[in-house]
Amino acid sequence: MNKYWNNKINSIEPYVAGEQPRAGERVIKLNTNENPYPPSPMCRKAMEEFSLDTLRLYPNTDAVMIKEAAAIAEGVAPENIFVGNGSDEVLALVWQTFWEKEYDQDKAVLIPDISYSFYPVYSDFYSVRCRRVPLKDNFEIDPGDYIGKDNCGIAIANPNAPTSITMPLSDIEKIVMANPDSVVMIDEAYAAFAEGYESAVSLIGKYKNLLVVKTLSKAYSLAGLRVGYAIGDRTLIEGLTRARDSFNSYPVDCLAQVIASAALLDRDYFEDRRMAVIATRERMAAELKELGFTMPESGSNFVFAKPPAPLTAETLYKNLKAKGILVRYFDKPVIRDYLRISVGTESETDEFISEVRKEICDAKGS
Amino acid sequence: MNKYWNNKINSIEPYVAGEQPRAGERVIKLNTNENPYPPSPMCRKAMEEFSLDTLRLYPNTDAVMIKEAAAIAEGVAPENIFVGNGSDEVLALVWQTFWEKEYDQDKAVLIPDISYSFYPVYSDFYSVRCRRVPLKDNFEIDPGDYIGKDNCGIAIANPNAPTSITMPLSDIEKIVMANPDSVVMIDEAYAAFAEGYESAVSLIGKYKNLLVVKTLSKAYSLAGLRVGYAIGDRTLIEGLTRARDSFNSYPVDCLAQVIASAALLDRDYFEDRRMAVIATRERMAAELKELGFTMPESGSNFVFAKPPAPLTAETLYKNLKAKGILVRYFDKPVIRDYLRISVGTESETDEFISEVRKEICDAKGS
Repeated sequence: MNKYWNNKINSIEPYVAGEQPRAGERVIKLNTNENPYPPSPMCRKAMEEFSLDTLRLYPNTDAVMIKEAAAIAEGVAPENIFVGNGSDEVLALVWQTFWEKEYDQDKAVLIPDISYSFYPVYSDFYSVRCRRVPLKDNFEIDPGDYIGKDNCGIAIANPNAPTSITMPLSDIEKIVMANPDSVVMIDEAYAAFAEGYESAVSLIGKYKNLLVVKTLSKAYSLAGLRVGYAIGDRTLIEGLTRARDSFNSYPVDCLAQVIASAALLDRDYFEDRRMAVIATRERMAAELKELGFTMPESGSNFVFAKPPAPLTAETLYKNLKAKGILVRYFDKPVIRDYLRISVGTESETDEFISEVRKEICDAKGS
Repeated sequence: MNKYWNNKINSIEPYVAGEQPRAGERVIKLNTNENPYPPSPMCRKAMEEFSLDTLRLYPNTDAVMIKEAAAIAEGVAPENIFVGNGSDEVLALVWQTFWEKEYDQDKAVLIPDISYSFYPVYSDFYSVRCRRVPLKDNFEIDPGDYIGKDNCGIAIANPNAPTSITMPLSDIEKIVMANPDSVVMIDEAYAAFAEGYESAVSLIGKYKNLLVVKTLSKAYSLAGLRVGYAIGDRTLIEGLTRARDSFNSYPVDCLAQVIASAALLDRDYFEDRRMAVIATRERMAAELKELGFTMPESGSNFVFAKPPAPLTAETLYKNLKAKGILVRYFDKPVIRDYLRISVGTESETDEFISEVRKEICDAKGS
């Protein structure tokens, strides 16, 4: 209890991001779902052409350049796009814009009990009551749990994290259709890696209560730039803009605006790298299965895998870390048997698999 | 009333930033207190040396590089620094960290009734009751109004905006000393332009309840980069960090981190440009006074000036705008007689003064 912090700050449990190596430390980093490939060469061109002197002026508040590029990438109009400082900021604004504070009413926002672990943190920080809906035993989301249930909003990551599982678009549509008075937020951070999945953006024109959130951190290799965006009916975009203008008028800096726009417009590079990540994921999944791991089918740039007994997820996580290979371990009920392993480059994957093989041998021998 | 927005978003009045010219529009922009000079050449060097490929990785959450550079610039330890996406984000987190929600208790945060107009917006958005304390008739803040008064916190801009007036450090210290149970936030966005003013940072080691907020937007010519920071006891920094980690783990991107650090470390350039702005301000103030304007003594990179009758602030604002010269006019009680005019380059100032002279002649002739 600190006397200078308010009650909320004294009581919250902040989000804990995946560990970052110290500068200069040589690690294989498969723990925060970053893209193993560099961003588009067009980003470099944009940076080189940027006139540094313009940094003396405030940025365009709406990041219009990114809105226009994202509109082209998504096949919508710029007024259907809201840009933020990473999709985390966009999500934080979603919580503050669409869902009622718990002191206003009893309705909760529905979220899967296993999902992006920032969701319950937002709910707590912004005093929005949330009801955590259990997954099915196979880690899938049951759309029926979000239909005909009292709520003030619904937040679903698709593909979900850390489970990596994709819900079919037809199920998303059922949920959106069944909740016309609530905003349904679909977080598609990983959707570029879900083969055969058509983005929920295709439903935007049809439903005024659907908001899709995307990030440039994963599929565009720009985690370090902090740009994300939401796509939805202009009324939803206007609500998010009101929240932003009550908090920080200029959240996306000038350089980030030109670099992000360049990345969004280079569709060939995007397509090429996303397919490369998918190919490596499929190979890694096959090799892990051969080693006795079990895992759901992944639609993301990571796999959610359970090591073969007697090796436990915790031991494997710790032993790999000692060897300079970082993966994500969640010490939480149900998911503590699994590791979330990001897709690295081909050679990182080779090294990872080879170390895992040794660990399995050691575990069996002991 | 929009059915998808929550009660708060339906009821707030967002902050309105100063107008920005359209791309390519040729204007003399004296309306948003930007610096007329480009950022330090060291920023260019930092950008050129930046490896764009590192953008695929998440940034350091704490922006340690900026913490270290700011610590050198401010003469404190890095653990006394909190970095955010512009000082607006830092301020928004101050409101969420230190001051109680109105549903928790009756105490209000005290702010001057004429000050940075984002303060009441934060209060409203974050449901913190605020009491707006009138200024003296000469626009000065009376420190006595903040001593022995029940409160849950105090927020003062020093120099204040848009009045441009600096409160002596001894008065700040009296307020901090008299409120040991409240966090006193001193917003020094403009303090680099207050000649002879010693920053309240010099009091940090002495008072655990003092937080000073600074920005790189004005004195470092980096409004477009969005970097600001707070300086205070490590307990206050820890509180802000808890709030940040409940909202957005990585608010400052990798490029902004290297560019901002370079600017902070180039002390000679900072000193040189700050003195240049002060010199132009003094000349502009003298010439405006000669033309019959009245104004308080400015400690900032703008003046707060009342035109000579029969010319009104509103007319002058509109006529200058028609000629491509933007200044800031606030259509609000008390201050609607004044204009806030940012310090431009020498030649921008010449052109501005010459147009003002014509307006005064026209107004007298009509």
